[in-house]
Amino acid sequence: MTGTGPGKFRLKCWTGSLRQLMLAGVVVIVCLLIFVGHCQWKEIHRTSSSQLGKMDMIAESVENIPFTWRNETLSLLHDKSRCDCSKSKHNLWKDVDEKDRAATIERRSKELTKYNQRVESSKETLMIVDGAAPLSYPVRGLTVVPEGTAELPGLVVLDETARQEYEVQLQTTDFGVLDTVAEVAQAQLEGLRTKSLTIRSKSLSRLNRQLQFIVYTNTVYDIDATEIINFRYLHHRVSVPLRIRVRTVPFLYDPGPDNDISRKITIITKTFIRYASIRKLLSSIRKFYPNIRVVVADDSRPVEDLQAENVDHFVMPFAAGWFAGRNLAVSQVTTPYLLWVDDDFVFVPETKLENLLEVLENTKLDLVAGTVGRTGIRYTKMDIVPGDENGDCLRIHDLHHWGPVPGFPQCRLSTRVTNFFLARTDSVRAVGFDPVYTRSAHTQFFMAAIGRLRVASCDHVRIDHVSDKPAEYKKFRNEGGDYTKVSQRHEFFKHSIQCWVNR
Amino acid sequence: MTGTGPGKFRLKCWTGSLRQLMLAGVVVIVCLLIFVGHCQWKEIHRTSSSQLGKMDMIAESVENIPFTWRNETLSLLHDKSRCDCSKSKHNLWKDVDEKDRAATIERRSKELTKYNQRVESSKETLMIVDGAAPLSYPVRGLTVVPEGTAELPGLVVLDETARQEYEVQLQTTDFGVLDTVAEVAQAQLEGLRTKSLTIRSKSLSRLNRQLQFIVYTNTVYDIDATEIINFRYLHHRVSVPLRIRVRTVPFLYDPGPDNDISRKITIITKTFIRYASIRKLLSSIRKFYPNIRVVVADDSRPVEDLQAENVDHFVMPFAAGWFAGRNLAVSQVTTPYLLWVDDDFVFVPETKLENLLEVLENTKLDLVAGTVGRTGIRYTKMDIVPGDENGDCLRIHDLHHWGPVPGFPQCRLSTRVTNFFLARTDSVRAVGFDPVYTRSAHTQFFMAAIGRLRVASCDHVRIDHVSDKPAEYKKFRNEGGDYTKVSQRHEFFKHSIQCWVNR
Repeated sequence: MTGTGPGKFRLKCWTGSLRQLMLAGVVVIVCLLIFVGHCQWKEIHRTSSSQLGKMDMIAESVENIPFTWRNETLSLLHDKSRCDCSKSKHNLWKDVDEKDRAATIERRSKELTKYNQRVESSKETLMIVDGAAPLSYPVRGLTVVPEGTAELPGLVVLDETARQEYEVQLQTTDFGVLDTVAEVAQAQLEGLRTKSLTIRSKSLSRLNRQLQFIVYTNTVYDIDATEIINFRYLHHRVSVPLRIRVRTVPFLYDPGPDNDISRKITIITKTFIRYASIRKLLSSIRKFYPNIRVVVADDSRPVEDLQAENVDHFVMPFAAGWFAGRNLAVSQVTTPYLLWVDDDFVFVPETKLENLLEVLENTKLDLVAGTVGRTGIRYTKMDIVPGDENGDCLRIHDLHHWGPVPGFPQCRLSTRVTNFFLARTDSVRAVGFDPVYTRSAHTQFFMAAIGRLRVASCDHVRIDHVSDKPAEYKKFRNEGGDYTKVSQRHEFFKHSIQCWVNR
Repeated sequence: MTGTGPGKFRLKCWTGSLRQLMLAGVVVIVCLLIFVGHCQWKEIHRTSSSQLGKMDMIAESVENIPFTWRNETLSLLHDKSRCDCSKSKHNLWKDVDEKDRAATIERRSKELTKYNQRVESSKETLMIVDGAAPLSYPVRGLTVVPEGTAELPGLVVLDETARQEYEVQLQTTDFGVLDTVAEVAQAQLEGLRTKSLTIRSKSLSRLNRQLQFIVYTNTVYDIDATEIINFRYLHHRVSVPLRIRVRTVPFLYDPGPDNDISRKITIITKTFIRYASIRKLLSSIRKFYPNIRVVVADDSRPVEDLQAENVDHFVMPFAAGWFAGRNLAVSQVTTPYLLWVDDDFVFVPETKLENLLEVLENTKLDLVAGTVGRTGIRYTKMDIVPGDENGDCLRIHDLHHWGPVPGFPQCRLSTRVTNFFLARTDSVRAVGFDPVYTRSAHTQFFMAAIGRLRVASCDHVRIDHVSDKPAEYKKFRNEGGDYTKVSQRHEFFKHSIQCWVNR
């Protein structure tokens, strides 16, 4: 409702500048995309409408002033919107049977819409302050708990013109009502405890005094939503966003009086018919860390008992799978950090967990990897490039990183790292290892973690790798054939990705 | 740095009004608390400083105008800040040995500080628009990806005064540089691709035209951070917040061409030396839902094999515990929804999972419970009440709810519900069942879920409960003695809660 009017305004004033942009050929599409991304018509608030009305008035002069593109900088904006699968060796779209491809994509876009409505519920819409409005008001940092009451600081009308009477109106949109904690003589209040409150006074000072006491009370429950309060004076309309947010409890871990590392780290792994390997790993761990608890997820048959002091052995159904086992192991951790190791790794003197712990405890990082075997440090930059209805692209930039970790020159900010990492238990749990990936899968976890985990790779901690893959093992663990098809189709749907591209 | 100046201003103008508030006795403390909460001195932005300078000027007139408190509304503000454990029957603070209580609380407050720095990194500080500033600018909805470039729409200087020359300055704070995609003749640019960009022109229109092409480029990587760009004209300074955010992938599930419920729901449970119960549950499930997969976490000894078609049996170390088993079961789900049932529940004709599914699929809810046995619908309101250095309070309001679920009159918005619920797999995973709770625990999960899961309770779905607790079972499952002490101490530290209070 608030949207349509402003929408028109915006369109009008912007098409003006777009007409100019036309000259720049392909650039127009890019800008249009970016612009549409910014605007989000339907929800745009009054704040920006009057602002743009103002721009309209000066449009003749401003919009007709010529300019020269700076192509190098333009290309930076341009870069955003490329998703080209033509050269991809990992094309998920192709793995969907042609006959039900259309139907699958249709189901997926339905699910994606629902997902966005749920997850991006409190996503912020563009709001532009109108320099012509003589109003002071809060635009950021206001919160209220469900059924709670909150002050609205900073509401002021600035008007040098003497008038017979001054009037302001405050209006809530969805979740609550307006009230006042105090009354000021010679200021009339209308609509207390309703969604629309009007204040009138012959004195601007008294009106402003009254505004200092106005409060908002939430009446519609939600754990996380955004209320928009409209503040009107004369023809000026501005929006005051207020976040409805439940108070949450923190998730803390007691490091204990003595700085004992076994209180902080649990080592977790997954094994499958490689008891020689896992036993070698366990004994190597004991050599350097006698007390750290180890969690082993095992889907072998026949089962050999690995239960021991500080070793917890979990038996899964036969060949339950790689990520199912990893997710099981993660679910059993009670320390703030977990160390992931493959069952064919071996602890050596350079396997200094203290070094990885130091990085996590002194940064905002969630996951820090070390080096495996003799390959040296590994890191990969990955990001999501928006695509078309077939899906987005996962862009992989191997051997590249996002920069050094401040204070830790041995570490690089990264997106995909090795399978030897120390991570915050709660952060990894929130992303999870999808049990659908029963065999080879690695990038799939780090793709799901993009934007959810802060990841780095370091070279001052190393573990050994003694690979041992018996034929029986390969039969159940290697990719190819049916598994590849199933897992790639799953990835195509779950993450709305159509292919991987190397940068 | 930006903080101190504004901080002083604010203090000056507010102590003015606080002197007045003194009259209202206790009320002043409340307001002061709320006010401090709002202000967050250190981080307050320039935007509000000049605004408050303005308030200063009119303070004489406005701040001296008398007012009358409306106590009923005041009490709503007041309510926020009560956390009284004096009558609590569940006092966690008391369960911490007096000798190491102080040390424990000190360690906890250290961990809490680190947690808040990490988790609330992008928490919004109060920002108030200055109605006296003749500037238009965006204050909401701007985002850029790491190493990406974004437009800054709506930057306009509105000044009717004719001047020799006009000059604006844009300055980034932490994460990037400023540039322009086009150059306007007779507008001078200084500081392109630096943190401080100055634009000068003898023509205000040309300066405003140039402002339309200014872009921001992120140079410091972060997956989620907030950049503040300062926009200066004459003595006016405003702040443009811009969010640095990595593009994430969605987590979608394919409902499949046929609307098969077994593609959507996995039934999960945890059992311990009650094979008669679990077998009764399994056969009752099969009677109504022959194909839905069931996951059983089992820490019994001796182990009886429960593996069967569509039943996956996971064997844990002996007496691994209640929440460890629940968390294991959750970790193995590959459907979008999971149904939690206790091992001594029995499916009956009224156990219509379709009804719970309908609620989840048509709302933003994460978890919806049904009724158990003949007790009828159960719901409890819970919230966190801020406390002192000893911790916060969990306020429990049993038999109360947050209102009906729109469109589903049989359901009530709630905080704590029964152990018979259908929930979004990914949402529950993100909260998790803490394996530290090895025996009786229920409220602990729903407390952790406050503000993280949208919860409701419905009475149009029912399951039976045939309790069977052999002596051996009680020995390992009931609370009391050592377990109560350990679990309450854990809760005290982990969630920074000092007691539970009934409302």
